Amino acid sequence: MAFEQRQPLALGAGLFYPGGEHVTAWRSADAVPEQYLDLDYYAHFAQTAEAGTFATVFIADELYVWDRFASGISHGVNVRPEPFTLLSALSQLTSKIGLAATISSTYNEPYHVARKLASLDHLSHGRAAWNLVTSASDEEARNFGRDSNLDHAVRYRRAEEFVDVVTGLWDSWDGDAFLYNRASGLFADRTKLHVLDHHGEFHSVRGPLNVPRPPQGHPVLFQAGASEAGRALAGRTAEAVFTISPNDLTGAQQLYSEYKARATGAGRSADDLRVLPALLPIIGRTEEDAEERFREIARLTPDQVSLDLLSHHLDADLSDRDPDEKFVFDFDPENFNQVRSVYSSIAAMLEQRDYTLRELYNTLLRQRFRLGTPDSHAAWIADRYEQHAADGFIVMFSTLPDGLDDFVEHIVPRLIDRGVYRAEYAGDTLRENLGLERPAGRYAA
Amino acid sequence: MAFEQRQPLALGAGLFYPGGEHVTAWRSADAVPEQYLDLDYYAHFAQTAEAGTFATVFIADELYVWDRFASGISHGVNVRPEPFTLLSALSQLTSKIGLAATISSTYNEPYHVARKLASLDHLSHGRAAWNLVTSASDEEARNFGRDSNLDHAVRYRRAEEFVDVVTGLWDSWDGDAFLYNRASGLFADRTKLHVLDHHGEFHSVRGPLNVPRPPQGHPVLFQAGASEAGRALAGRTAEAVFTISPNDLTGAQQLYSEYKARATGAGRSADDLRVLPALLPIIGRTEEDAEERFREIARLTPDQVSLDLLSHHLDADLSDRDPDEKFVFDFDPENFNQVRSVYSSIAAMLEQRDYTLRELYNTLLRQRFRLGTPDSHAAWIADRYEQHAADGFIVMFSTLPDGLDDFVEHIVPRLIDRGVYRAEYAGDTLRENLGLERPAGRYAA
Repeated sequence: MAFEQRQPLALGAGLFYPGGEHVTAWRSADAVPEQYLDLDYYAHFAQTAEAGTFATVFIADELYVWDRFASGISHGVNVRPEPFTLLSALSQLTSKIGLAATISSTYNEPYHVARKLASLDHLSHGRAAWNLVTSASDEEARNFGRDSNLDHAVRYRRAEEFVDVVTGLWDSWDGDAFLYNRASGLFADRTKLHVLDHHGEFHSVRGPLNVPRPPQGHPVLFQAGASEAGRALAGRTAEAVFTISPNDLTGAQQLYSEYKARATGAGRSADDLRVLPALLPIIGRTEEDAEERFREIARLTPDQVSLDLLSHHLDADLSDRDPDEKFVFDFDPENFNQVRSVYSSIAAMLEQRDYTLRELYNTLLRQRFRLGTPDSHAAWIADRYEQHAADGFIVMFSTLPDGLDDFVEHIVPRLIDRGVYRAEYAGDTLRENLGLERPAGRYAA
Repeated sequence: MAFEQRQPLALGAGLFYPGGEHVTAWRSADAVPEQYLDLDYYAHFAQTAEAGTFATVFIADELYVWDRFASGISHGVNVRPEPFTLLSALSQLTSKIGLAATISSTYNEPYHVARKLASLDHLSHGRAAWNLVTSASDEEARNFGRDSNLDHAVRYRRAEEFVDVVTGLWDSWDGDAFLYNRASGLFADRTKLHVLDHHGEFHSVRGPLNVPRPPQGHPVLFQAGASEAGRALAGRTAEAVFTISPNDLTGAQQLYSEYKARATGAGRSADDLRVLPALLPIIGRTEEDAEERFREIARLTPDQVSLDLLSHHLDADLSDRDPDEKFVFDFDPENFNQVRSVYSSIAAMLEQRDYTLRELYNTLLRQRFRLGTPDSHAAWIADRYEQHAADGFIVMFSTLPDGLDDFVEHIVPRLIDRGVYRAEYAGDTLRENLGLERPAGRYAA
């Protein structure tokens, strides 16, 4: 595809664990765990990403403390700022980079979500985005009045209705509804105000919203669910998907094509949906240096934590198992009610060969990362983009703050040199920087 | 009372309508309604208040658009940023002033509220506060899945349980729970994490919160309800009350004493509850100039808006009445389910004498404001403080931005000269600046 026919590669700077994308990354040499509630720490992250022309920061989130196993509290990072509070503060310390917050549709009210996203979009001059997730753990359910999580299918039906309500509320006021006419005393033209009056399976919301239409029309909608229901939802509603792509190029191309087909199948254009797989680079001066950095990350993770993480992913208690015994497990994907994509990928691995528990969790950890030199990372990223396996990546970092610092210093210039990445922002809004059209809104003539 | 035995006068800078505390204040000469979604506008407000050593900004809020009557949309300001998004952004543009957001306990989840207040308290280094209100209109109910508002008594029972859950979540982690020990791999001491496990009439919340204990222990709790149930709740839980005080000194002293007695009656100290009545000054160069400024505010309000506001306060449709007819109304306070304090004060006025509708709404408008010169305002404020009718005031402004600019330029220096007001902040946290003790938390030994 000729370059002018396609948007340049887009990058997002992802963050869940403040110290990097592993539960014990806070132990790494450059980590500063004492600062995980300081805004300065996150300002460095956002400003560094902005210096690297990242389209957006991308704050993942969960609504609970991981205390299912004792090791989670003792060894893991269970505290972080609420993403929205964080991004609103960061909006004043950055000027171009997008501000994407994860918000669960399972335990929120659409009026609140529409309102805070619209407000952030105004205060940031068009940089807000929403990463829609459904909440997938019983721990989250218990913080919101339930004993156990909603069923998977119910969560996704609720998510789709939730998106419909939120976008409808954003369209409450036409863009030209406000008159500000001191002489006549007319503040607004009330023919340009729309009452949503939604009554659905999960939500009854009259509206209108008490915030004007956002500068982007609608803040950009990301979606991260990878199950069948998640992919279907993304095809119908999302503007960017955050995926876990297969390591092999063909598999990644197939997933990319499938998402594009989901969009066109829903009557949209393939360009309306950006496919942004996760990328967790470990950047070494040499390949061997990258390997050594990975071994250090693995070494910082106690066996008990690895066992307990595996227990969590499978929703089973393996905490007392011997890591060196052969792992046998009775998979039941139809009745599994946490994150299905991880569960299914473990089931697929065990169909291929035998694993001890240690081999399994070490392999899972290894699979999460891509190891290489700056040159090999840049070549791989450009290739995935050029071969239509990705429109870009949500980059997450094995350790922070060094992981992002290194990426911007060593990989970004190489991507620019390869002609796949922009050295300057295309515009002032996230929509402009992702090349997404501004939605007209459901009441547009 | 000797000065060293009492905290200096405290001021809050209140804001609901962005243009000043009247629905048509946006028409005033200095108003800039085009900027009501721009952060710069609110940054000027917060920074000016900080220059005037205000203890806090105080953002009022409602969760709906006032479209019960057509005039509300045509003539009123129905749009504003969501308070929390706003205050988080302002935390980066100020350094000392408190950040108080109104949050309804009626249509929120305590886990979300605890989390965002704790996060703001961390990111602002101890400046967050929460103005607890219950939602009092059917319009709000309809944005959150209900046909009509919760009953008054139910709202207040829910509010009290809500406060209990939120403060319990703030205490999830002891202040010294975090170890950050790279060598041992211990991030936290799990004996210092507490599971709330709350199961009550309205809320089931297991916890713990995924944010460390806030710098202030608990962000400061304001409460604004003035009904019997509201006063009782304030006595038990609030650290500052936002009240509407009678204009006469004796009545104001009685209300002040009553709130203090509510606190001591609940086993607390009278100093644990600051009484901060609303003050809406109109500042003139002369008394006649202040009168002229008031007449201008009244002139900017169409009769229809005034009728409709009265209809709103009484939850009745008076929109087609002749403003010059005698007003007769059948009050039924027991069954009234909006804001009871306003309703009751109108009933009390009509017991005193006859009013036409015009006389009534003009009198109500006049009663909201205090007119005077800088000298008379400063003398009155100091007197109310010294006579134990107030610990300070939530000042709201008839027009903005000029109302706050004038207050800080002309009244603040006079209060300092009178020896009742501080020229410098006492500390870095809102608690320090209000002279409130840091709560130990429910799990403290």
